[in-house]
Amino acid sequence: MHSFRELADLFSARFNQAHFPATPATLYEPAEYFLGIGGKRVRPVMCLMGNELFDEVHPDAYQVATAIELFHNFTLVHDDIMDAAPLRRGMDTLHKKYGDNTALLAGDVMLIQAYEYINKVSPTYQKQILALFNQTARQVCEGQQLDMDFEKHDRVAMEEYIHMITLKTSVLLAASLKVGSLIGGASEGNRNHLYEFGKNLGIAFQVQDDFLDAFGDPEKFGKDPGGDIRQNKKTFLLLHAIEVCSDADRKELKHLLSSDDSDKVQRVLGIFKRCNVDDWANQLKERYLATALQHLDDIAVVSSRKKPLLELSEFLIQREY
Amino acid sequence: MHSFRELADLFSARFNQAHFPATPATLYEPAEYFLGIGGKRVRPVMCLMGNELFDEVHPDAYQVATAIELFHNFTLVHDDIMDAAPLRRGMDTLHKKYGDNTALLAGDVMLIQAYEYINKVSPTYQKQILALFNQTARQVCEGQQLDMDFEKHDRVAMEEYIHMITLKTSVLLAASLKVGSLIGGASEGNRNHLYEFGKNLGIAFQVQDDFLDAFGDPEKFGKDPGGDIRQNKKTFLLLHAIEVCSDADRKELKHLLSSDDSDKVQRVLGIFKRCNVDDWANQLKERYLATALQHLDDIAVVSSRKKPLLELSEFLIQREY
Repeated sequence: MHSFRELADLFSARFNQAHFPATPATLYEPAEYFLGIGGKRVRPVMCLMGNELFDEVHPDAYQVATAIELFHNFTLVHDDIMDAAPLRRGMDTLHKKYGDNTALLAGDVMLIQAYEYINKVSPTYQKQILALFNQTARQVCEGQQLDMDFEKHDRVAMEEYIHMITLKTSVLLAASLKVGSLIGGASEGNRNHLYEFGKNLGIAFQVQDDFLDAFGDPEKFGKDPGGDIRQNKKTFLLLHAIEVCSDADRKELKHLLSSDDSDKVQRVLGIFKRCNVDDWANQLKERYLATALQHLDDIAVVSSRKKPLLELSEFLIQREY
Repeated sequence: MHSFRELADLFSARFNQAHFPATPATLYEPAEYFLGIGGKRVRPVMCLMGNELFDEVHPDAYQVATAIELFHNFTLVHDDIMDAAPLRRGMDTLHKKYGDNTALLAGDVMLIQAYEYINKVSPTYQKQILALFNQTARQVCEGQQLDMDFEKHDRVAMEEYIHMITLKTSVLLAASLKVGSLIGGASEGNRNHLYEFGKNLGIAFQVQDDFLDAFGDPEKFGKDPGGDIRQNKKTFLLLHAIEVCSDADRKELKHLLSSDDSDKVQRVLGIFKRCNVDDWANQLKERYLATALQHLDDIAVVSSRKKPLLELSEFLIQREY
């Protein structure tokens, strides 16, 4: 058994190589640039962990993990175009550095190359892997579309928002684990529990991310808090505040969302506190985490094999602020 | 055996249905809109013809033909974004009607859905089909990148231009035939001859397209000639003219390319005629067509089965102007 860190090192050693031919360099250099700017490689490692929960890591799991990381980077490149984002992990985004058109095409070839890695796995389970990969890929696109749609709406129901977050971020974490478990020989019941573990963990993580952006300790969190508020981003916190706050606070929130007042962040946080958004968010996070851990518990393998996944959830979901 | 027209009708009857779920409609309605604006469905029919050259059309050929048409539409949607093109087949392009971001995502889901259709074929040849499909998809992206690169260059060598056209348009025609022949049980030698037939036919067609845009009879051609010249598009004709014309003509061409003079088309055509670009283009087209037909001839099946492909090449490559 390996820890997250060990698997991340094993994966990176294989992933950090050229994934494309040298020419045309105008297309493939930009693609390699973006793949090289890093990231925690959480999803491919989850694929390896899903495999190792049941059996030794099979070489096929590395192929699929590589496909997953390429797919994830494809979504980042295209999302960055749509969001007109200049920076990613402190570096120029692909479209900022090489232009929108090349970024569009470089994203496309990353997605195509992901399928080439999937084509390297054993025929025994290739159809199942391809089906889950396709379903997940479509869902991630749906999530991105819903996210863009919601930006234009005044109000979004919590249920719809959770659905969007599930599609946009959670299903890929869930599918990464599940596809690994399929390679590891897991039964269908175990695979589904693992999928639900990943899905719920992903939602808990997103709730935490929104919470930390508003209430996190800047020193621990590593970025200036209130970014979501300044950008009028729809978050779990904002949507809940709009649902539960007083009419007066709702009116003020609406005003603040269309203003650039210097005390905007402070005043929105004041409203959040008045309607206990912080407590609510912590409870919501704990609820999704508990559901996730229950599914992990329900997987029929000896508990010692679950240790790396428990460590992963502790690493992703901090319980102290 | 079926004619091109019969196979096109058989294909359309299956293709003209929803390829995506109903929701989110903000993503899938745009995708279905674009798939519904038509086109001649040349590529999927070539897949069916490749199959029927060797055996009765297998249901798997329809799945792969659908994947090919979805892939082709994905490239059109993304190319239209890159070219900022307002119209396609006389209708609004997807990005014009629904915005760039939705067009980007709708293109992405078309590509993903193409892979879902490929996942429906028999495991017997699924790996081979996926490999050829991935290779072709990457090449088409490379061709589009090279096309954009060349727009920025003053001079492009003919060899490089032919390479770009091969990637951007011919390999998909070639692969469509080849993948169909694989399903039809063709030997590797026959499959490769069929691929070369499609590749060379595609180049001949592109040369003809460039020729007709400059010299075609507007009544037969159906569009106002000289469009490429007005848009300063790099074409077979322009690149050859730059290569062979006199220094004085080259100087005038350079001036015309940066002008919007009302007699621009007429004057460029004058230069083309002076350096016999029309004869050269006809010879070039005939050469690629002859190579294509030689490969068709070399395929080891009874010649009666080749009739639909011969008709296709006569339909695509007109020999009278």
